[in-house]
Amino acid sequence: MERTIALPETLRWAGGVDGRLELIDQRLLPGEVVYLACETVEQVYEAIATLAVRGAPAIGVSAGYGAVIAARRGNDLREAVAKLEEGVAYLKRSRPTAVNLFWALDRMASKGRELAKTAGGREAFLDGLLAEAKGIDEEDRAMCRSIGRHGAAYIRDRSGVLTHCNAGSLATAFYGTALAVIFEAWAQGRRFSVLVDETRPVLQGSRLTYWELAQAGVDATLICDDMAGYAMQLGKVNVVITGADRIAANGDVANKIGTYEKAVCARANGIPFYVTAPISTIDPHCSTGDDIPIEERDQDEVLYAVGRDDAGTLRRVRLVHEGGQARNPAFDVTPAEYITAIITQHGVHAPNSLPII
Amino acid sequence: MERTIALPETLRWAGGVDGRLELIDQRLLPGEVVYLACETVEQVYEAIATLAVRGAPAIGVSAGYGAVIAARRGNDLREAVAKLEEGVAYLKRSRPTAVNLFWALDRMASKGRELAKTAGGREAFLDGLLAEAKGIDEEDRAMCRSIGRHGAAYIRDRSGVLTHCNAGSLATAFYGTALAVIFEAWAQGRRFSVLVDETRPVLQGSRLTYWELAQAGVDATLICDDMAGYAMQLGKVNVVITGADRIAANGDVANKIGTYEKAVCARANGIPFYVTAPISTIDPHCSTGDDIPIEERDQDEVLYAVGRDDAGTLRRVRLVHEGGQARNPAFDVTPAEYITAIITQHGVHAPNSLPII
Repeated sequence: MERTIALPETLRWAGGVDGRLELIDQRLLPGEVVYLACETVEQVYEAIATLAVRGAPAIGVSAGYGAVIAARRGNDLREAVAKLEEGVAYLKRSRPTAVNLFWALDRMASKGRELAKTAGGREAFLDGLLAEAKGIDEEDRAMCRSIGRHGAAYIRDRSGVLTHCNAGSLATAFYGTALAVIFEAWAQGRRFSVLVDETRPVLQGSRLTYWELAQAGVDATLICDDMAGYAMQLGKVNVVITGADRIAANGDVANKIGTYEKAVCARANGIPFYVTAPISTIDPHCSTGDDIPIEERDQDEVLYAVGRDDAGTLRRVRLVHEGGQARNPAFDVTPAEYITAIITQHGVHAPNSLPII
Repeated sequence: MERTIALPETLRWAGGVDGRLELIDQRLLPGEVVYLACETVEQVYEAIATLAVRGAPAIGVSAGYGAVIAARRGNDLREAVAKLEEGVAYLKRSRPTAVNLFWALDRMASKGRELAKTAGGREAFLDGLLAEAKGIDEEDRAMCRSIGRHGAAYIRDRSGVLTHCNAGSLATAFYGTALAVIFEAWAQGRRFSVLVDETRPVLQGSRLTYWELAQAGVDATLICDDMAGYAMQLGKVNVVITGADRIAANGDVANKIGTYEKAVCARANGIPFYVTAPISTIDPHCSTGDDIPIEERDQDEVLYAVGRDDAGTLRRVRLVHEGGQARNPAFDVTPAEYITAIITQHGVHAPNSLPII
């Protein structure tokens, strides 16, 4: 039995070069589905830095549109070229770990240098940039579908699947990476159940992944992060599938904090561990995971939890005594040896023989 | 340099046989230190079931006093004996995993049967029961001190210590088990830093352990549970120390959910993993961890987080969409093979050669 997967659109460009980037404000999920309109490069920066949009591929696509928004501040071709370069450098400072951000911005800058020579005027320059940003967006959607098709066979009928953080439609332009595999297997009619790690501190699992799976009608249950190992011991997990924020040339994977623990426990229980990501997540400049910078975020994310009170109002509650101090690394690195395979839009790769582009 | 450790008293008996059990209401920590008075057996049951008092040893001590409170409802010796038996059976249903609860209640029942023959009247019967409950309480305090002394040498100068959940003073009558080791090493003047797992869903780490360590002046930093593996990778953890809720005869340890993940990651990183517990935590009736019943608690603990809003009011916030479903196993079992040693009041034991009493 084939099933249909219905999901809201994570982000979209509205209008022409004077248009705007509209994206679901993920800080309000799952309570409210509100589109945030970004019309300045500062708004795009803020949306990325504050996690209104997050997930390596979605950050890349948003940054592509952000580059167009930056460039159009120039009043003529020369100014637009300068504003593009400025905007690209500025947006690169919004988050440090996801390589797709840098990849997309470098691609926009490179396209800008080409257009600066060929476009002949501001309008053609901006049109060319917007076409490039839309290209990144469309390629992302196609990439997700392809990852889903390559990975779906790894989810067997009547199996249990564990995922960590959100590598869903919300982490991409549409359909997701890890969740694309789940959606595709579900659409093909397979029966299985998904365990979703809540993913403290920002709770992308409970707020985003679990909500997406519910929207799509996939059988899913929420657990706290620390329950995953126990579920593995009980035999309730047959496969683990996550996304990635940056992959080193040797196959080491930076992903949401906690991914490493899941991988170590999967290994101890003989459970295959798959990482899904677009090819652009592989960073040839990082020979190993040691070269990947790990973002340390504000300790308030750990000292507080954010949710809805009984009246539905978004509220943060303090979990710790006044004066308490926390660490908040947002990512960790899972060594290649713990990873069964890395699934990209081009196929299924052994971590030690990645296609480096 | 010797240091002094100052801590509030977790629980105390006030008055004679007509007195009451006073215990810190741990649901209000760290915002407020309020003593909850239990004068009926129902109040003791409620305090245990709702986690006003928690931690295997503290549950045992509370249940001992609860047995006195139950017995005194009888108007003569015969009735008091019957009420004791009734109260013991009732209190045993308050929580299923911590064996100390059953151990303390069986000890009170056994003492009751002895006193029924020798006491000669209701008053002597109740006096004898109260003395027994106080004995359990005092033995618990002495046990904690002894565990601290046996374990302190495992914390080296300038090292990093990881602990999970709360095996602190608040989990015992006073001083703790895992934290007794930390307090003792700190009192001896050693310098080290403690990483505290927040321990979702009930956050015993952020609310209790981290607060206790701050009260005692121990250098400590809070992390989310999933950050522990990353800290191990970075070399910031030299030893892991936890408590236990029940230990099987073969050395398998049931403890707070997530303990297993820490143990597996510790092994992968070559870090010693110590479990601390009174001898009464070893259950000779469980030959392996498979025999230990694991409590499944209300899913609301996972669907919500509880903390203080900006006005200091205790409030719960929903983390998940309406209709969401979660699993909430409160404990997991760490196989003996992952445990370096088990530290009791009698010394340091290899998990495969436990003293069975």
